[in-house]
Amino acid sequence: MPVGTAGTVKAVPQDVLEDLGAQIILGNTYHLYLRPGHELVRKMGGLHRFMSWNRALLTDSGGFQVFSLSELRKVSEEGVSFRSHIDGTSHLFTPERSMEIQIALGADIIMAFDECTEHPAERDRVRRSMEMTLRWAKRSKDYFEAHKHEVPWGDREIGRPENQELNHKGHEGTQRESDSGKAYAAGIPSEFVQSGIPTPALFGIVQGGMYADLRRESAERTVEMDFPGYAIGGLSVGESREKTMEMIATALEILPKDKPRYVMGVGYPEEIVKYAAMGVDMMDCVLPTRAARHGLLFTSEGRLNIKNARFAQDQGPTDPLCGCRVCQRYTRAYLRHLFVSAEPLAAVLNTIHNLAFYLDTMKAVRHAITLGDLSGVLSRSVSLV
Amino acid sequence: MPVGTAGTVKAVPQDVLEDLGAQIILGNTYHLYLRPGHELVRKMGGLHRFMSWNRALLTDSGGFQVFSLSELRKVSEEGVSFRSHIDGTSHLFTPERSMEIQIALGADIIMAFDECTEHPAERDRVRRSMEMTLRWAKRSKDYFEAHKHEVPWGDREIGRPENQELNHKGHEGTQRESDSGKAYAAGIPSEFVQSGIPTPALFGIVQGGMYADLRRESAERTVEMDFPGYAIGGLSVGESREKTMEMIATALEILPKDKPRYVMGVGYPEEIVKYAAMGVDMMDCVLPTRAARHGLLFTSEGRLNIKNARFAQDQGPTDPLCGCRVCQRYTRAYLRHLFVSAEPLAAVLNTIHNLAFYLDTMKAVRHAITLGDLSGVLSRSVSLV
Repeated sequence: MPVGTAGTVKAVPQDVLEDLGAQIILGNTYHLYLRPGHELVRKMGGLHRFMSWNRALLTDSGGFQVFSLSELRKVSEEGVSFRSHIDGTSHLFTPERSMEIQIALGADIIMAFDECTEHPAERDRVRRSMEMTLRWAKRSKDYFEAHKHEVPWGDREIGRPENQELNHKGHEGTQRESDSGKAYAAGIPSEFVQSGIPTPALFGIVQGGMYADLRRESAERTVEMDFPGYAIGGLSVGESREKTMEMIATALEILPKDKPRYVMGVGYPEEIVKYAAMGVDMMDCVLPTRAARHGLLFTSEGRLNIKNARFAQDQGPTDPLCGCRVCQRYTRAYLRHLFVSAEPLAAVLNTIHNLAFYLDTMKAVRHAITLGDLSGVLSRSVSLV
Repeated sequence: MPVGTAGTVKAVPQDVLEDLGAQIILGNTYHLYLRPGHELVRKMGGLHRFMSWNRALLTDSGGFQVFSLSELRKVSEEGVSFRSHIDGTSHLFTPERSMEIQIALGADIIMAFDECTEHPAERDRVRRSMEMTLRWAKRSKDYFEAHKHEVPWGDREIGRPENQELNHKGHEGTQRESDSGKAYAAGIPSEFVQSGIPTPALFGIVQGGMYADLRRESAERTVEMDFPGYAIGGLSVGESREKTMEMIATALEILPKDKPRYVMGVGYPEEIVKYAAMGVDMMDCVLPTRAARHGLLFTSEGRLNIKNARFAQDQGPTDPLCGCRVCQRYTRAYLRHLFVSAEPLAAVLNTIHNLAFYLDTMKAVRHAITLGDLSGVLSRSVSLV
């Protein structure tokens, strides 16, 4: 899942994301809550409609970003109080508040409020944190079940072209008819609309730090709460890749195979292929987009830093095996020039390519799964490490 | 002409510019000379190929930007010495050097090296400056005629698919065949290739400050040199709009109607419509792109500052009469959120809309000219001032 922190995958227009084959993107609750605010997004019809994204959306719980971005945070059983990194104002996230905000945003998948345990951490600390995450998962689910119908489209019919025209009342005379339904739809598959108000799906999150038995216990007790999907959180926080894989493998033994299994915040291309081969269904990471803005491009020949002087006269495409619109049209020499000149188009083109590389990687994985043999995809990707 | 200073119309991919109907864009010699350097662009096959832009290109002479951007410039009869605004290195632009650089960049239209007279300026100072610009025009033309075949494609055949594949030697096995010819063509219409090496067209520039008789004399003596097109420079430098129009009208009386007549560095939408109605064929301005990056959007209802709080919940498009991809898909509320959040997508979408508004304005002007009646276009645009 490409990460669209503040209601935008940084530098990439939504139609390009569609062309790239992005089926689901992620929004960050912490950012959207602070700006533009979840109540504004609710009034605008929810995040799908606000950002004009008709495909699936997932929002995180806000917990992880409070830990990584905000100032003066204080964790208690009730929740996490923090100061905004934007204006210093004080806020409190609780499991209930996180659910309220995420329901207002109206993503298709929302996440239970958890504590991402710091690394390294002593066993006792990790157990206490894991236990609290389990209690928060229960509170998240209780609030969610009681309020899940309070979605942005809860008080109106959706999916009807005549209602979508409300966005543009007064402008019906223009040539927008053909696109307006598509562009401004609330992003809810029409089959849901027939059976009442569609609601998000709430996923639980496994914690447990780097202790296999705690991971196992966390997974077992989270599964007992019966979520429609499960995430494995608290990884890629500084541990070795072997440890990451061990923790994922441990959780996957417990998490049901017939439910989506989602590893949060990973990873490099070769890692996501490995995790998929282990049985992981979903992943998100800022790496392809953030790296792109820093000039780091992922290719079938390995990573390249486009600002390197050796690309100054390189007339080849970023990746000779890539079919994306950037590799089809622009040379490495041009991309280097854009980056070195701090041109805004650098971020646009670099991000498009990196997302194409990631999404094509996962397309190859899905294809290999269909064929029943992941060995080819695995051997290709491992060679890039 | 949208301005593509450093080989990119800031924040907009080339395929979007094509979709917007941009037929010609402008590159800045000063910027391209400093970075990536005209010799590098020459080696890459010229600016068309370097930036993958198959339509027309115009480069300015570098003179104006030396005056406005560089440090420690010193003007003499020989030319202008200056220090780079990027790294402080010393450089000298002369008419001959400007021609050499522009021929290396390989635009379709290149501009004579002129001095943009400061405003306000005494009559004597303006006359001396105008006289020097005329001498520089002669030197530009002499050098150009002697060296115009030194274009980036001068030592090879162009327009042949097999040569264009040189860009991607070794990658022929990929799926790029269908696009490579189009994407990497040098941007030269094939009819030129049959009759030898195509060369740029050199335009002369009228100066003369805000003195009608000097403008007239400058125009007459520039026309005597017989250029294939003429620009009117030194305007929009702080004078009143009435004075701008008076100077344009004065020059247009002299400049031949059967040659392109180009006013440099203008203007607001209502101004470019007026100038076109007066007989101006070409204009360039950073306004639509620069304003977009500052959140100022041009619409059929007037200008709007998208960061204004009144747009926070505005579900309408930027311009209800605009058919561009931004107005078709995104609300003012979303564009405001992107801008306030300093998201890179703000510059992308705002620029696309503003360029669409400008290019659509000129499309309407061309249509009105074909119909023989500009009054409708003029009255609509004047109401926006």
